[in-house]
Amino acid sequence: MDKKITIAIDAMGGENSPYKTIEGVKLFLKKNKNNNDFVLNLFGDEAKIQKSFSDLSLSDKPINIIHTNSIVSDDETPLTAIKNSKNTSMWNCIKSQVDGDSDISLSAGNTGVLLVISRMILKMIDNVNKPALAGLWPNEKGMNVVLDLGANIECNEDNLIDFAELGSALFKSIFPNESPIVALLNIGSEEIKGTEVLKKAHKKLSSLSNENNFIFKGYVEGNNIMNGDVNVIVTDGFTGNIALKTAEGTAKFITNNLKKSLTKNIITKISLIFSYISLKEFKQKLDPRKYNGAIFLGLNGPVVKSHGGTDPVGFYHSIDLCYKIVKGDLMSQINKNLNHLKGD
Amino acid sequence: MDKKITIAIDAMGGENSPYKTIEGVKLFLKKNKNNNDFVLNLFGDEAKIQKSFSDLSLSDKPINIIHTNSIVSDDETPLTAIKNSKNTSMWNCIKSQVDGDSDISLSAGNTGVLLVISRMILKMIDNVNKPALAGLWPNEKGMNVVLDLGANIECNEDNLIDFAELGSALFKSIFPNESPIVALLNIGSEEIKGTEVLKKAHKKLSSLSNENNFIFKGYVEGNNIMNGDVNVIVTDGFTGNIALKTAEGTAKFITNNLKKSLTKNIITKISLIFSYISLKEFKQKLDPRKYNGAIFLGLNGPVVKSHGGTDPVGFYHSIDLCYKIVKGDLMSQINKNLNHLKGD
Repeated sequence: MDKKITIAIDAMGGENSPYKTIEGVKLFLKKNKNNNDFVLNLFGDEAKIQKSFSDLSLSDKPINIIHTNSIVSDDETPLTAIKNSKNTSMWNCIKSQVDGDSDISLSAGNTGVLLVISRMILKMIDNVNKPALAGLWPNEKGMNVVLDLGANIECNEDNLIDFAELGSALFKSIFPNESPIVALLNIGSEEIKGTEVLKKAHKKLSSLSNENNFIFKGYVEGNNIMNGDVNVIVTDGFTGNIALKTAEGTAKFITNNLKKSLTKNIITKISLIFSYISLKEFKQKLDPRKYNGAIFLGLNGPVVKSHGGTDPVGFYHSIDLCYKIVKGDLMSQINKNLNHLKGD
Repeated sequence: MDKKITIAIDAMGGENSPYKTIEGVKLFLKKNKNNNDFVLNLFGDEAKIQKSFSDLSLSDKPINIIHTNSIVSDDETPLTAIKNSKNTSMWNCIKSQVDGDSDISLSAGNTGVLLVISRMILKMIDNVNKPALAGLWPNEKGMNVVLDLGANIECNEDNLIDFAELGSALFKSIFPNESPIVALLNIGSEEIKGTEVLKKAHKKLSSLSNENNFIFKGYVEGNNIMNGDVNVIVTDGFTGNIALKTAEGTAKFITNNLKKSLTKNIITKISLIFSYISLKEFKQKLDPRKYNGAIFLGLNGPVVKSHGGTDPVGFYHSIDLCYKIVKGDLMSQINKNLNHLKGD
């Protein structure tokens, strides 16, 4: 029998937890009830977790509850976290990866602390200098992986090349039937555009591209991130964070204004009767909960950060993301990509 | 009698010109037919311009046509432009500002060349080191000024402070009844977040803020650019360009998907009958032609760059923007702001 996919879940992190996390777990169990290739290790206050499951019998479910008696607070700074976090659900969750008990960790807790603890426990992959936060972002043909979304304010060309390798490995693990097509986010598509770091990264990536672990397509501009011509967008953490949040803000602005327009008067409200199903599909496609989960890459094990404010559906999607990442064997994909780098 | 607002227009720049530019001029004349406080100086091929006016008699219109016999090509690089551009419509357009014949210039031609020529002819304002490209960007309460949108890939803290002063002067000239509220675009709202340059700029701007030329509100994140709490967004040209284009791409992605949803089947098409007017208003609010026109700031005279691919309506909006900028006396607003800076 194959080894099962084991996901370590910090049941206590984020708002409304463990209610939110356990409802997410229930949803995952429901959608995978005919599936017996996974185990969920839940870390946190055992009594509260049990209570959240309430009516659900766990005896026949692939669930382990591992009791921990403290929680990383949202006010904790990364600096104090190291000292204070050793008995927390977050710490023990990630620790279980090193102990060989889990393949991946998921937490909706304090981002800064999660990054520091993960790095401390899992350690960086040899020859990768900086870890990156990667996210999913819809495009016209499917989905992008975008990184770095904010782990590193400044990056050099070697960091960007690592991110290209890590990001394309992540893309391949989540979408095994598609090919990663990498581009560097820039302010123009011509080779001479952009910062010195980008020009150097462009040159190095161009010389790697015939190895076929991914296709390198040069630069992509902000307005083309979502057109589907490329699907792994590489940038430094400052630019990536600005781009992601600007896209979120723009989407919110447009949907707010659309809502105002369509509920403006009785006639537009009548229109909603006819467009209800179609607008619901539209809304679902853009639902940010579907893209919930930033993946922390570059460590000796994958860690997924759920949005702290998400709801059970959002948390379910991040459990599903963890499942896909392990099923697609992210760590082997990364090793393959990085070995190829070393060979150059 | 007051001096008239005189706008120099490069009639030949951009796609489909002079047809596009002259149709834009016609629209401006129509909307301002009861208004006699302006003159439009049109630079370009006189015969072609006359032909584009066709049926319209110019004898009683506030229009001067100044013949020039060449055009800046779209393939021209800024480096070759200086040598080749002296007889072009673009060059003569900007030159008329120095000669005292125009208050502002407008061109839909080659951006790089326009920036180089403008800087060469108009020269930088004393004590401003780098010019900036500013743009208008809608928010929930009205409009933002965002700068720099791409003139400078790298900026230091003094450049950002200049941009704050220039941008708030621009905001005040276009929206005389509102107060400029400045923020630095960053990846977090806490003071410790971001690059060293941003932290230094934050500190300096905080110490200036009680002078009341503008209110400084600290940092703004990408997702809050459009919520209307601030209205002058300051950033370096790399970040600004990425943010603007990402917003454009996101808006396009969402409206494309909305269109698909609402034309999916006969039932959703029926809904369009009821929501037609309201959706039309929604579309108009987001119409990028309304925000057409990037303003080149920091020179001894304002220059507006229209999008090269815009249509007559878009070009009309950039003429209207020029009119507002001069009416609001941008150059005095800038002097006021910069004098206050010097006093520190």
